[in-house]
Amino acid sequence: MSDTTTEPHAPVPDLTAWTCPAPLRDQNRVVMGHGGGGALSAELVQHIFAPAFGGEVLAQMGDAAALSLGGVRLAFSTDSYVVRPLFFPGGSIGDLAVNGTVNDLAMSGARAAYLSCGFILEEGVELSVVGRVAEALGAAARAAGVEVATGDTKVVEAGHGDGIFINTAGIGLIPPGVDLRPQRVVPGDVVIVSGAIGVHGVAIMSVREGLEFGVEIESDCAALGGLVDAMLAVTPDLHVLRDPTRGGLAAALNEIAAAAGVGVVVQERNVPVPPAVANACAILGLDPLYVANEGKLVAFVPREHADAVLDAMRAHPLGADAQVIGEAVDAHPGMVVARTGLGGTRVVDLPIGEQLPRIC
Amino acid sequence: MSDTTTEPHAPVPDLTAWTCPAPLRDQNRVVMGHGGGGALSAELVQHIFAPAFGGEVLAQMGDAAALSLGGVRLAFSTDSYVVRPLFFPGGSIGDLAVNGTVNDLAMSGARAAYLSCGFILEEGVELSVVGRVAEALGAAARAAGVEVATGDTKVVEAGHGDGIFINTAGIGLIPPGVDLRPQRVVPGDVVIVSGAIGVHGVAIMSVREGLEFGVEIESDCAALGGLVDAMLAVTPDLHVLRDPTRGGLAAALNEIAAAAGVGVVVQERNVPVPPAVANACAILGLDPLYVANEGKLVAFVPREHADAVLDAMRAHPLGADAQVIGEAVDAHPGMVVARTGLGGTRVVDLPIGEQLPRIC
Repeated sequence: MSDTTTEPHAPVPDLTAWTCPAPLRDQNRVVMGHGGGGALSAELVQHIFAPAFGGEVLAQMGDAAALSLGGVRLAFSTDSYVVRPLFFPGGSIGDLAVNGTVNDLAMSGARAAYLSCGFILEEGVELSVVGRVAEALGAAARAAGVEVATGDTKVVEAGHGDGIFINTAGIGLIPPGVDLRPQRVVPGDVVIVSGAIGVHGVAIMSVREGLEFGVEIESDCAALGGLVDAMLAVTPDLHVLRDPTRGGLAAALNEIAAAAGVGVVVQERNVPVPPAVANACAILGLDPLYVANEGKLVAFVPREHADAVLDAMRAHPLGADAQVIGEAVDAHPGMVVARTGLGGTRVVDLPIGEQLPRIC
Repeated sequence: MSDTTTEPHAPVPDLTAWTCPAPLRDQNRVVMGHGGGGALSAELVQHIFAPAFGGEVLAQMGDAAALSLGGVRLAFSTDSYVVRPLFFPGGSIGDLAVNGTVNDLAMSGARAAYLSCGFILEEGVELSVVGRVAEALGAAARAAGVEVATGDTKVVEAGHGDGIFINTAGIGLIPPGVDLRPQRVVPGDVVIVSGAIGVHGVAIMSVREGLEFGVEIESDCAALGGLVDAMLAVTPDLHVLRDPTRGGLAAALNEIAAAAGVGVVVQERNVPVPPAVANACAILGLDPLYVANEGKLVAFVPREHADAVLDAMRAHPLGADAQVIGEAVDAHPGMVVARTGLGGTRVVDLPIGEQLPRIC
């Protein structure tokens, strides 16, 4: 594990006095950031949904709920998909609606078995567009080995929707011995990312804003069930997996650090950022750590298994570019810091909202 | 079973030459009727979704999918909720989002165990409204004995949504020996409805259109799991249950008749229609058989169990007004006919769309 930090940590700035910008927090209406997967999304869950719904399972706050039904351990997860545009380089809302939910299940170690699928259509959308989306969704489901078992369609008047929204929920079995939760992360765990980050968000932005970055960037949208199976074949004792979608790698690492009560140190130079993504982010003033991914995962792995897990990931097509990017540490619990290429340290905080709304 | 028909059937008009109005069928864009639960909804499923998704479970076309996972028999169902207004006499979109999905599961005999919940919020909606909806949803879940296990929130720009849309999916165990499918219906089965019909749709219309009918009509929105349990305690050998939501009792009976290959005869005078609903429908030119319900079910029960099941229903608060309304017959397979109060017969066909969109 030569490429993880073992030296003493550089000083970390005192952020205890940090507060969110008041205009965002004090508003009494929904803003786009409430859907961004960052601090505002977390506030909505913590202050509105969790108290209203109660329940122990929801309190797990994972990508998927792990629950027991009829003596069987199940993962259960849902996501709504509101991406614009509906079709983008490398995929469509139909692909996302399958892969996003399949990946949420995979992050609990479960192989997705069945999906539900709810469409909210806007009056006036072309049936041929609905058909293309449905075909993409069906093809993605077959590729992921999951069956669409039940569905629903609602229609809203023109001007009260946006073409097509899709919700999928998924269920799958959690294999025996697998217990993936941020609370299991301990200092010393090795942080591995399965490949290049920031690709999906930049792909969406390039088509939405009509930007050209010299090369077409295709979304990394993919189903990660097979990659997770390959990792669990090394050891069921992985500690936590997350797919860094909204809020990017930064949000995923912050959530894990907070839930586990550990610090996380990331070596910036080891984070795989493709040149095209780096260029696009430089032009747009974005930080790749905050840009959404749809076919990547980040894993916290016990140090003794890290080399073998990394090898297994690199042997899988979706993990060929896997990299160790950091580790969990005792210091600064709940905080994520990045060692910069120049030897400095910066705090990678939880984003407030989303740099780029409606990317999934 | 004195109140079911046993006399020979009156002649039924030849409807084989009947076709849908061309303007509806030939359009190439989504119209409101595609979300109405009638013939247009069925076309969307049959011509677009089913071929695209494939799969044997979806082909069951029930309110919920019955599936096997880890050796356990599960029901799995989803619905999106787009009702306007968000709050109405007797309930809210939060109540509907629980009860609608709980009821879909109950129609397969399953007691709902866990729900997923996906919100699509429109930028600018008041957080207090989101909070009230969430509280209603949580309270309805507790009342139904189901736990919200996992959730998701997306936000779309102002003008690209309509306040709050909710999707829920639910899972529950199907008890041993229970096999509720329209294909199990046979001629001679007794048709029982659990209470007054048309209430939910008229309640929504009265507030949406600002109509006054002399008395306030409250939605019948309720969770039917307990009522179904009471019926299954009599015998697990019920043949099929449906909750007649969009498209009303007419759509539910037509779907069952078509799937079972039987005729259905309804005695109009035995269908419980409250005076306030009858008055409202008379004023508005609606047929109560086509108006949506949210706390009622229709059951096809083997004749030998019908009396006992009816007694059990009437002993439950949500089935106090249960009535035998008709029977399944050999004649006119796939067709539903009503015997009118004047002794005539009329065909109750599958609605094309929905008399009143966005009632759930």
